Amino acid sequence: MALTPYQQLEQEFKRLHAFQGAAGILRWDAAVMMPRGSADIRGEQLAALETEAHSILTSPRVARLLDRAEANAQVLEDWQLANIREMRREREHAIAMPQNLISRMAKATARAEVKWLEAKEKSDFKLFAPHLEEVTSLVRDKGHILGKALKLDPYDALVDEFSPGLTSAEIDVIFTALGRRLPSLIHEVIELQAARPPLEITGRFTVSRQRQLSLDLMRALGFAFDRGRLDESEHPFTGGVPGDIRITTKFSPTDPLTGLMGVLHETGHAMYDLGLPEAWRGQPVGRDRGMALQESQSLLLEMLICRNRPFLRYLQPLLQKALGTSGPEWEVENLYRLLIRVRRDLIRIDADELTYPLHVMLRYELEKELLAGELRVKDLPEAWNARMDARLGVKPGNDTEGCLQDVHWAVGSFGYFPSYAIGAVIAAQLYETMRAELPELDADIGAGRFESLFAWLRTNVHGLAASLSTPELIKQATDKPLTAAAWMRYAEAKYLES
Amino acid sequence: MALTPYQQLEQEFKRLHAFQGAAGILRWDAAVMMPRGSADIRGEQLAALETEAHSILTSPRVARLLDRAEANAQVLEDWQLANIREMRREREHAIAMPQNLISRMAKATARAEVKWLEAKEKSDFKLFAPHLEEVTSLVRDKGHILGKALKLDPYDALVDEFSPGLTSAEIDVIFTALGRRLPSLIHEVIELQAARPPLEITGRFTVSRQRQLSLDLMRALGFAFDRGRLDESEHPFTGGVPGDIRITTKFSPTDPLTGLMGVLHETGHAMYDLGLPEAWRGQPVGRDRGMALQESQSLLLEMLICRNRPFLRYLQPLLQKALGTSGPEWEVENLYRLLIRVRRDLIRIDADELTYPLHVMLRYELEKELLAGELRVKDLPEAWNARMDARLGVKPGNDTEGCLQDVHWAVGSFGYFPSYAIGAVIAAQLYETMRAELPELDADIGAGRFESLFAWLRTNVHGLAASLSTPELIKQATDKPLTAAAWMRYAEAKYLES
Repeated sequence: MALTPYQQLEQEFKRLHAFQGAAGILRWDAAVMMPRGSADIRGEQLAALETEAHSILTSPRVARLLDRAEANAQVLEDWQLANIREMRREREHAIAMPQNLISRMAKATARAEVKWLEAKEKSDFKLFAPHLEEVTSLVRDKGHILGKALKLDPYDALVDEFSPGLTSAEIDVIFTALGRRLPSLIHEVIELQAARPPLEITGRFTVSRQRQLSLDLMRALGFAFDRGRLDESEHPFTGGVPGDIRITTKFSPTDPLTGLMGVLHETGHAMYDLGLPEAWRGQPVGRDRGMALQESQSLLLEMLICRNRPFLRYLQPLLQKALGTSGPEWEVENLYRLLIRVRRDLIRIDADELTYPLHVMLRYELEKELLAGELRVKDLPEAWNARMDARLGVKPGNDTEGCLQDVHWAVGSFGYFPSYAIGAVIAAQLYETMRAELPELDADIGAGRFESLFAWLRTNVHGLAASLSTPELIKQATDKPLTAAAWMRYAEAKYLES
Repeated sequence: MALTPYQQLEQEFKRLHAFQGAAGILRWDAAVMMPRGSADIRGEQLAALETEAHSILTSPRVARLLDRAEANAQVLEDWQLANIREMRREREHAIAMPQNLISRMAKATARAEVKWLEAKEKSDFKLFAPHLEEVTSLVRDKGHILGKALKLDPYDALVDEFSPGLTSAEIDVIFTALGRRLPSLIHEVIELQAARPPLEITGRFTVSRQRQLSLDLMRALGFAFDRGRLDESEHPFTGGVPGDIRITTKFSPTDPLTGLMGVLHETGHAMYDLGLPEAWRGQPVGRDRGMALQESQSLLLEMLICRNRPFLRYLQPLLQKALGTSGPEWEVENLYRLLIRVRRDLIRIDADELTYPLHVMLRYELEKELLAGELRVKDLPEAWNARMDARLGVKPGNDTEGCLQDVHWAVGSFGYFPSYAIGAVIAAQLYETMRAELPELDADIGAGRFESLFAWLRTNVHGLAASLSTPELIKQATDKPLTAAAWMRYAEAKYLES
C-alpha cells in the first residue's frame, strides 16, 4: 500500500532524527570520552551528519510532501497537524539560511571559539575582538535573513531558534519587572543573610561515594538508567538524545554540594527528555519545546525543589550515610542556608538564584546592542564592566571574569541567553500552580516520593513535547500567560522569610 | 579552480569515511557505554548511516567519476591509482548487492542474532535452526551474486569482503599443511607439558591496578593516548576509527594474565590502525588490509612477542610492582609455561595457539558445506560434535559449547573464520623475516624497547595500508608467498623445545 504524503514525511523526519541523534551521541562522546587528538576526525563526522540533516530539511521532496499533506489536512489528527507545523518550522529555519552563510558561520565560529579560549586564558580581549566582530556580523546577517523568512524581528528570529514562540516583547516585560525589584531585593537579602551566616563545610569527600550518592538520588527521582547514564566532564551538561540521555557533573573532593546540585540540575533536563511521548519519538512534534522550557525543568528541580527544606530533610540522612558527614554544619537548616546564599559574584555560572537574572539581562541588552550596531565590539569590555557595576555593584578586575567568561557569542549563540532567566520565571509559575494542585507535594518530597511531582510535569509539560508553542504551553499548564509575578512571589517568600 | 574527477572522488569517499567513522564510534559506544534500553534508537541511527554510506558508494555520480578518473589515469600517482582500484573494489561489492537482499539480510540477521543468544543460553539448537536456515540461504544468494559480479567463486567472494585478495585455494593449501601436522604436534606438546606442569596462580588482584598496568604497557608499546583509549567490555575488541581507536578488555580479579593478554592482543590491532598513513586518511587506500592482516597484527603482538620469554623478562618486575606478586609461580619461566599451555578445549575464544587453527578449520569446512548445500542446517550439531571429536579428541556435552558458541553465522559473517588462522600464519611469516632483519629484537623487547618492532611493522605492513592486496603485501614484506612453513617452524621450535 502506498504511503500517504504525511506518512512519507514521517519517514523523512525519522531519518533526519537518526542523523541528529547520531550527532548528539558523538558530541557527548567528544566532551566526555574522546581522546583530545581526535577532534579533527570528529569535526568531519559531525559536518557530514549536519550537512546531510540540512539537505533532508531543505530538499524539494520534503517541500512537495508538506504542501500535499497540508492540502489534505482534514484527514490528520491534532498531533499530526502539530507535527506538520513543526516540520514546516524546522524547514523554514533551514531553508532561510543560504548554504554560503552556514559554511562561513561554521568556519568563523570554529576559529572564534579557539581564539576565545586563548583570550580568556590570557585575559586579553583584543585577541578575541576581530573574531567576535566577524561572528557578530554574520549573526546580524542571519537575523535579517531568518527574520524576513519567518516574518519576525531579526533578534526574535534568533530567539525563535532556541525558544520557539518567545519574543523580545515578552522578554522585555519580564526583564523590566525583574529589573525593577531585583537590585533592592538582593540588597535586603544579603543584609538579612549576613545577620545569620551559615557554617562552612570543611573536609574531604571521596568522589566515588559522591558518585554513588548521585546515582541513588537519580534513581529515587525516577531517572531511567536503562535509557541514560551519568558521567563526569569539565562542565555539567545534558547530552545524547531522548531515549538515550547522558548527563554529566563535576565532582570536587572538598565541595560535595556543588557536584550534587549539578547532578540534580541535569536530572531536571533528563527527566524532561525521558518524559517526551514515546509514540512521537523521532518526529518534530516529539522534541522538547526549546531552551527556555528545558531550563525551566532543570531550575525547577535544582532551585525550587532541591534547594529547599523538604528535599533537604530527605537528603540530609542520605548525605550522612554516604559521606559520613556529621556536625552542626550538616544540619538541614545550615545546608539550606548554604544552598540559598546570595552573593554579588562576577561569574554567571556560579551565580545564585537571585543574582542570576541580572547576569542574563546584562548579556541580553549587550547582545541586542551589538547586533543593532549601537555598541561596537571594541567597546564591549567597558560597557560590560560599567553595567556590571551598576547592576550588581561589582566590577570585573579583568576580561576573563568579565565579557570573556561565556562561550556563547564565540559560537554564534545570540538569542540564547534570555532562555536561562525566562526558564527560571517559567519554573516559578509552574511551581506555583503545581503546589496549588498538589497539596501533599512538600510531604511527598520530604519522604523521598517524587512520583506526584513528575506525574504533574509529565501531564503538563513533558508529555506535550512540541505540540504547543512555549507561551501556549505555559498558558495551558498554569491558566495564565507568562509573567514575572509568580517568580517574584516565590523569591520574596523564600529569601525574605523572617 | 574546478576539481578533477579524481579530486571529486576523494571528496565523495571522505564523506563516506565520515559516515563510516561515525558508525564505528556509535558501535563502540553501543558495546561499552550505551544504556541497554537504547538499542532500538541506536539501531535506527546505524541503519541511517549505513544506508547513506551505501547510497554514496552506489551513486551514478561515483560511477561516472571513476570512469573519468580511470580514463585519465596517466596523470595520477601510484598511490592514487591504488586508491581508485580500492574505490572500484568497494563500489563493486556495494553495487552487486540488490537493495532488497541487503534489507532482507539486515532483518534476518537481526532476528537470528536474538534467537542465537536465546538458543545459546538454553543450549537448544532447534530454536536457532530455522533462523540459521534463512541466513544461510540469503548468504548463499549473496555469494552467487557477489561472485558473479567480482568474477570469483561464490565462497571466495564472501572471503574477499573480509580479507581482500585471499582465496579458498590458498586457504586450502595452508589448512591442509596445518591439518597434517597439528594433531600429532598437539599430542606431543601436551605430553611434554604434562611432564613439567606450571604452578597455578592464586589470589586476588585489584582491577584498578590491573588497569593501570595495562595503560603503562600500552604506553610503553607506543599506543597514542591522544588518539585512542582503553575501556572494559564483555569481550575484548578494537573499535572506533583510525585516528580515534578504542580498545577494550575484560579484567578478572582472580586472573590478571587473561585481561592483560586481551589488552596486548587489541593493542596489536590498534597499533596497525594508528600506523596507517595520515596522508591517506579517509580514502579507501588508507584503510587496513582486512581481517587476516588485522588478526596477524594482534596475534603477532600477543602470541609471538608477548607470550614469549624476552617480553616476560620485561613484564615480570612490572607485574610485581603493580600487583605485588611474588613467589615461584611469578617467575618468568613459570609465567611462560602458563601462557603457552596447550589444552584440548571446546571453546574457540579460550583456545591456545596450537589448537586454535583446528577450531577455525572445523568452521571453515562446515560453513562451506552449509553454503554448498552438502550439509543441512539440522545436521550441523551432529557434524560439529563428530568432527570436533575427530580433530581435537573432545566432544561437546551440549550445543552451547558446540555449534552455538560463536555469533558469526547468526549475523551472516560466512567467510570470516579463516582470517583468524590465516592471520596466525601471516604473523609467523612476518615474524621470521623480522627476526632475520632485526638481530637485536629479543634484546630490545627484553629491555622494554619496542621501537624497532613497530618501525619494521610500519614500513612493511601498517604504512602500506590497502595499497597492495593481502598476498602482494606478504610477498613484498617477506620476499615469499604465504605458506604455512614459517608458522610450522615457529610452532615446533616454541612448543617442542627440550
